Amino acid sequence: MSKKLTSRAADYSKWYNELVVKADLAENSAVRGCMVIKPYGYAIWEKMQAELDKMFKETGHQNAYFPLFVPKSLFEAEEKNAEGFAKECAIVTHYRLQNDPDKPGKLRVDPEAKLEEELIVRPTSEAIIWNTYRGWIQSYRDLPLLINQWANVVRWEMRTRLFLRTAEFLWQEGHTAHETKAEAMAEAKLMNNVYATFAENFMAIPVIQGLKTESERFAGAEETFCIEALMQDGKALQAGTSHFLGQNFAKAFDVKFANREGKQDYVWATSWGVSTRLMGALIMTHSDDNGLVLPPSLAPNQVVIVPIYKSEEQLEAISNVVNGIMGDLRAKGITVKYDNRTTHRPGAKFAQHELQGVPLRIAIGARDLENGTVELARRDTLTKETIALSDLTETVEGLMVEIQESLFNKALDFRNNHITKVDTFEDFKTVLETKTGFISAHWDGTTETEDKIKELTKATIRCVPLDSVNEDGVCVYSGKPSKRRVLFAKAY
Amino acid sequence: MSKKLTSRAADYSKWYNELVVKADLAENSAVRGCMVIKPYGYAIWEKMQAELDKMFKETGHQNAYFPLFVPKSLFEAEEKNAEGFAKECAIVTHYRLQNDPDKPGKLRVDPEAKLEEELIVRPTSEAIIWNTYRGWIQSYRDLPLLINQWANVVRWEMRTRLFLRTAEFLWQEGHTAHETKAEAMAEAKLMNNVYATFAENFMAIPVIQGLKTESERFAGAEETFCIEALMQDGKALQAGTSHFLGQNFAKAFDVKFANREGKQDYVWATSWGVSTRLMGALIMTHSDDNGLVLPPSLAPNQVVIVPIYKSEEQLEAISNVVNGIMGDLRAKGITVKYDNRTTHRPGAKFAQHELQGVPLRIAIGARDLENGTVELARRDTLTKETIALSDLTETVEGLMVEIQESLFNKALDFRNNHITKVDTFEDFKTVLETKTGFISAHWDGTTETEDKIKELTKATIRCVPLDSVNEDGVCVYSGKPSKRRVLFAKAY
Repeated sequence: MSKKLTSRAADYSKWYNELVVKADLAENSAVRGCMVIKPYGYAIWEKMQAELDKMFKETGHQNAYFPLFVPKSLFEAEEKNAEGFAKECAIVTHYRLQNDPDKPGKLRVDPEAKLEEELIVRPTSEAIIWNTYRGWIQSYRDLPLLINQWANVVRWEMRTRLFLRTAEFLWQEGHTAHETKAEAMAEAKLMNNVYATFAENFMAIPVIQGLKTESERFAGAEETFCIEALMQDGKALQAGTSHFLGQNFAKAFDVKFANREGKQDYVWATSWGVSTRLMGALIMTHSDDNGLVLPPSLAPNQVVIVPIYKSEEQLEAISNVVNGIMGDLRAKGITVKYDNRTTHRPGAKFAQHELQGVPLRIAIGARDLENGTVELARRDTLTKETIALSDLTETVEGLMVEIQESLFNKALDFRNNHITKVDTFEDFKTVLETKTGFISAHWDGTTETEDKIKELTKATIRCVPLDSVNEDGVCVYSGKPSKRRVLFAKAY
Repeated sequence: MSKKLTSRAADYSKWYNELVVKADLAENSAVRGCMVIKPYGYAIWEKMQAELDKMFKETGHQNAYFPLFVPKSLFEAEEKNAEGFAKECAIVTHYRLQNDPDKPGKLRVDPEAKLEEELIVRPTSEAIIWNTYRGWIQSYRDLPLLINQWANVVRWEMRTRLFLRTAEFLWQEGHTAHETKAEAMAEAKLMNNVYATFAENFMAIPVIQGLKTESERFAGAEETFCIEALMQDGKALQAGTSHFLGQNFAKAFDVKFANREGKQDYVWATSWGVSTRLMGALIMTHSDDNGLVLPPSLAPNQVVIVPIYKSEEQLEAISNVVNGIMGDLRAKGITVKYDNRTTHRPGAKFAQHELQGVPLRIAIGARDLENGTVELARRDTLTKETIALSDLTETVEGLMVEIQESLFNKALDFRNNHITKVDTFEDFKTVLETKTGFISAHWDGTTETEDKIKELTKATIRCVPLDSVNEDGVCVYSGKPSKRRVLFAKAY
């Protein structure tokens, strides 16, 4: 298989699909829409998990685990007022597989083993969790209840793409219960802020925090906060959401508590989640035509060392030096891999590590040994320099910080250069066709206008930015008065 | 709800069920046979995961993630030679839920949304993983492939018990591929040894490593290694298994590689797993009539500090001292919680922490402040002592090691005192009725005898211990010649 990727300019979508597979991040499986996350991709996800988990715990949350299945009746409790409800989800109806009596060598579902009530594979866990919380919450002393779950969920998506939209995906879902509306609202904001901090500091992805409009909101939510990122192709990607659920789930599942005045009241709720979709955001923010580019904080291997040798003796001499280098770098908390495979030539190793986005490559040959030097190659800038071995540890330590910052700043510049203020619908359409990115425009606040703009341009309101300022204007489509600009974009 | 547990002597099974719920470890859910793992229980499981994951990585394994669903046809590939195959498992047949047109407010499965091929919720992942490995393995250069997955699995068990046997449970499953039989066999042994080390060093549970007999083996395995532990009620519990799978899965899924001679050959395989069942083993090895007893290495809080005060001023003075203590203990890597809740009295706090198995409790009152002392209470021995505050950090550090060792030694003594050698079937039956535990006896090596003994006594062969020595004898049931003793027991 050729390692050469389609260029982004030629076909961004194809470039993405090829990169995910060739960089060994994930692949499609035998199950429609479900992916296999390969070890290299999973190692990146594990780093995301570890950091997020730490941030959740630092903000007082605990992990727990709730069932994979949700009985159909619990969805009925949740959705009792929903009109035209249809949920694309995986439904378990039977519980036994057996030999097919009519077809030797084949299996069939035992028709006798039908469940009394169908079970839905969780598309999200509000229903099963709120049904459980009813037993956990009696008094204000039981609040706040701050719980997170790391889990797999299933949504029967028709068109799937690795990481971005898959039938099964991995995520975390926080579900909290509070005494007051203000406390729940503060929690929803806090967790959106945790996501923004994580995206910017660890993933080096600049994000805009905002509120979703009613039509883009999670069904059970009264307010949805989100972080929106901009991909290299000018399309937006929703990277995380945090919902203020009001008392909707408490009412649906009858979760009351004795408040400080001794009266029964429904609790206030939030839920918030990020998923393996973040892998897609990571890839489409930093990577280039040569492959993946990883920020050091998320790279499974921050540094790779490749020996350049012509004989066993040279390899042995190089390896001795490399052992010292690895010890020094590891002592500084830097993850380093020595690629001393004898089955591959240096050029093939260089290409592989480039494709897989290792932030820094060190090459050492026989001449370097003589000169007391090494060659450093940065993945993000594709630049090389030869430095003294004695400066290596300090240089690498500095580069880890520099590369992380540089990736963030580059993405931030790109994002900021792709927010265009427009005041007429003609400009709106022209910008969408020529420049892409976010369009900052006035909107009259109605779902009708929002739907119409979507129908005409495929652009949706990504969010009402939290930091947007009041400004008198008129809706770019309807001409009605508006008090603030919102962000439109085509989106993943 | 009363916190007082049924005693172990009165009803061991009831004691277990009550403890799991009252200590906030887990509870039953709205889904038959599926449990909710509560935050305190999950925190213990997370500690197990973290340590096991580290051990897997230190032995060269990487994590990955494979789909939740297995198409029915992959089971057919795997089971094509199986007679009378029946698998109790959750089967997905449809992919849409919709409003029921005949019953307002109710939902139904959309009859139009039937899957072409049924999907099985994974009971284990050999089929989906080996179907994937076919694409990953071409040459001996791709081997060994050493992969682990942390996942949820579902087996439609009829009789379930929290942690011990649940329809859905959490586990890890290692799946490795090797060039040679010897390498795969070594891997299976290595991972069984990792499990034994983990059980003994972290869970403080002594285990016997052994081989399963043919009838107790995993269906696809040629050899199953296991670790067997003994619970307080004299019943054995299989705590982990590691399978040498031969070339069975490689043949079923056509996974061939070009070997070093350039010839095509089937790869050799292993799989190995431990699950949330370990939580049951932990509880039934160490706990007592007052509740859970946790080894320090697995305790979410190793130390809890309870202030004893009569006034705000006293609490403030105590809290000042406690802050210093916590800083000192945390600097030594000890997890400590200050239980300064004003909603509960010290007695209630003591009872709760005892029930939840916190290894060490420190109480500090106004008089302690005057005297420069604290009161230490050990959970495992239920002993108390008053020590000088100046000795506290060192004492606690020492006790963490001492409690861990003491729990292991106590369990080891119990286990060793409950292995009884018997040479007649009369003695076999008497021991089973009076003393319980493991019975070390000669067996003729036939499944027929094994089945007969099981039928007559409910005891099964737990394993052929790896360290058993050759010894001439006669089968305790059939009187036929035997070369080594095996271990029988009633088991969970």
